[in-house]
Amino acid sequence: MLQFTEIEAAAARLKGIAHRTPVLSSRTLDALLGATVLMKAENLQRMGAFKFRGGFNSVAVLSEAERARGVVAFSSGNHAQAVALAARLHGCRATIVMPHDAPALKLAATRGYGAEVVVYDRYREDRAEIARRLTAERGAALIPPFDHLPVMAGQGTAALELIEDTGPLDALIVCAGGGGFLSGCAVAARHLLPGIEVFGAEPERGNDMQLSLARGEIVTIEVPRTICDGQQTQAVGRQPFEVIKTQVKDILTVPDPVVVEAMRFAFERMKQVLEPSGACALAALMHHRERFAGRRVGVTLSGGNIGIARFVALMNGDEAVD
Amino acid sequence: MLQFTEIEAAAARLKGIAHRTPVLSSRTLDALLGATVLMKAENLQRMGAFKFRGGFNSVAVLSEAERARGVVAFSSGNHAQAVALAARLHGCRATIVMPHDAPALKLAATRGYGAEVVVYDRYREDRAEIARRLTAERGAALIPPFDHLPVMAGQGTAALELIEDTGPLDALIVCAGGGGFLSGCAVAARHLLPGIEVFGAEPERGNDMQLSLARGEIVTIEVPRTICDGQQTQAVGRQPFEVIKTQVKDILTVPDPVVVEAMRFAFERMKQVLEPSGACALAALMHHRERFAGRRVGVTLSGGNIGIARFVALMNGDEAVD
Repeated sequence: MLQFTEIEAAAARLKGIAHRTPVLSSRTLDALLGATVLMKAENLQRMGAFKFRGGFNSVAVLSEAERARGVVAFSSGNHAQAVALAARLHGCRATIVMPHDAPALKLAATRGYGAEVVVYDRYREDRAEIARRLTAERGAALIPPFDHLPVMAGQGTAALELIEDTGPLDALIVCAGGGGFLSGCAVAARHLLPGIEVFGAEPERGNDMQLSLARGEIVTIEVPRTICDGQQTQAVGRQPFEVIKTQVKDILTVPDPVVVEAMRFAFERMKQVLEPSGACALAALMHHRERFAGRRVGVTLSGGNIGIARFVALMNGDEAVD
Repeated sequence: MLQFTEIEAAAARLKGIAHRTPVLSSRTLDALLGATVLMKAENLQRMGAFKFRGGFNSVAVLSEAERARGVVAFSSGNHAQAVALAARLHGCRATIVMPHDAPALKLAATRGYGAEVVVYDRYREDRAEIARRLTAERGAALIPPFDHLPVMAGQGTAALELIEDTGPLDALIVCAGGGGFLSGCAVAARHLLPGIEVFGAEPERGNDMQLSLARGEIVTIEVPRTICDGQQTQAVGRQPFEVIKTQVKDILTVPDPVVVEAMRFAFERMKQVLEPSGACALAALMHHRERFAGRRVGVTLSGGNIGIARFVALMNGDEAVD
């Protein structure tokens, strides 16, 4: 079970390396929702998402001998870039297993951080099997994207910083995929503010965490059809779920069109670029505003890695998932 | 001639009312340009641009009796919203003279701040004449957009804050239209750092300030055809020019496509939304990078008021000015 002391230790490792991202607020949003909203701008984090925190912490906790053998991760998203950058900053080798049809921009960005990219055919090959083979062959350490204590502890530093900067909050809404970010933030927030209510936010079409929390056991779903590509996980991780089932008040689900509206609001009124999953917690607050009226609410803006072409397609409704 | 003490007085008036906007940096940008770039994010200022500083200061310096008679401004852009919001915060009446074909969004935003909007036909009527009539009829105070010491002093507080936060800079690049922002920032910067080189940035198609500085007298040009709608001034203001001709090192001009590239970079790498004029100083740095290699350079990101539709059109090249 994740302990607060591990989050504090992660914060010490990240100090001066991760950005202490700003807390944003919007008078227009507060008036719209009738609440005081304090947003942790992790879209301004290094490599554009909170994932850097967990990736860096995971490489930092390895021994020098382990780091000398390199690290391996499988991801088509922000975790890939997080581990690649974390490895480069530690002067160690990273191998990232990505699907052969991953966007060229993401392949290039991951290579740009100095990682070796191993591509696989997502319809014919098992990426976990490939990663296991690579770790066995090379003796490299596998850095899982969420079901891993050093990742959870690293991600939790975002909530630690937020609360240090804002003071008391009544509620905190964190976007949820595999649960690494949500569990880390829940432990940090409830240690600092025992009375705080922590909520996860997930796309309506991919509500596995809501189902898992309701049943008290991990529910696995089909790969969800949602624009929130950072949250297309099929099941919450085992270690995150241990935290979530006791520390999280509820899971808020959000339809994709509300996520698009939150992205639009962030662009036009806050001048911030958010990727769909990065806007999910804000969208959850907008969609469930009656639960938060009159309250002081922390929200994570978790990432901003979206190219202009996809942003435009989403705003035009061209990429709506039917 | 604008004095530094007036900027300090403006800073005291704005304290707790204007946002102390963050200073952004980008490792990618620094690597690309071979310089250390520190960006003052005035796109995150209230009403989305630095103009709030000068508008608020101009209303604040009026006597109570003057404010009771209200204020008038003519503007189709950010100055309109700045004066409207400043008046509302002072509990006084604002009348804004805007062209009848101004974007509906801007008309609505100005009305949204509680101002009365008087529309005129820009092809048949003289807006300055209309504003003069309104000020005469109502005894209201006219707040000019740039050729006005309280506006210049207010805008200069952006450079004051930047340098307080960054420490020494070798150069500062400020976007330039009528010269209110540039002159205010030049006085602040050169008072705090006498050795600093201050540059103005203007669109290549609207280089009146470059011509004026070269000839030592104010040159008037046709309304420039540029995407930088915040800089379509025909001539620098008289009082700003008094400062600029002694305190500004040079004017850097920028082709429109480079402005689009700077907006794209800000979106994709910095997750920031900038309007064209808001990206002009960054574009100038990119376009004239060889002059700034190895130096520590301050840059203003002056505004972010752009709707998604126009942003998309600019990215697609649909709104290129031939």
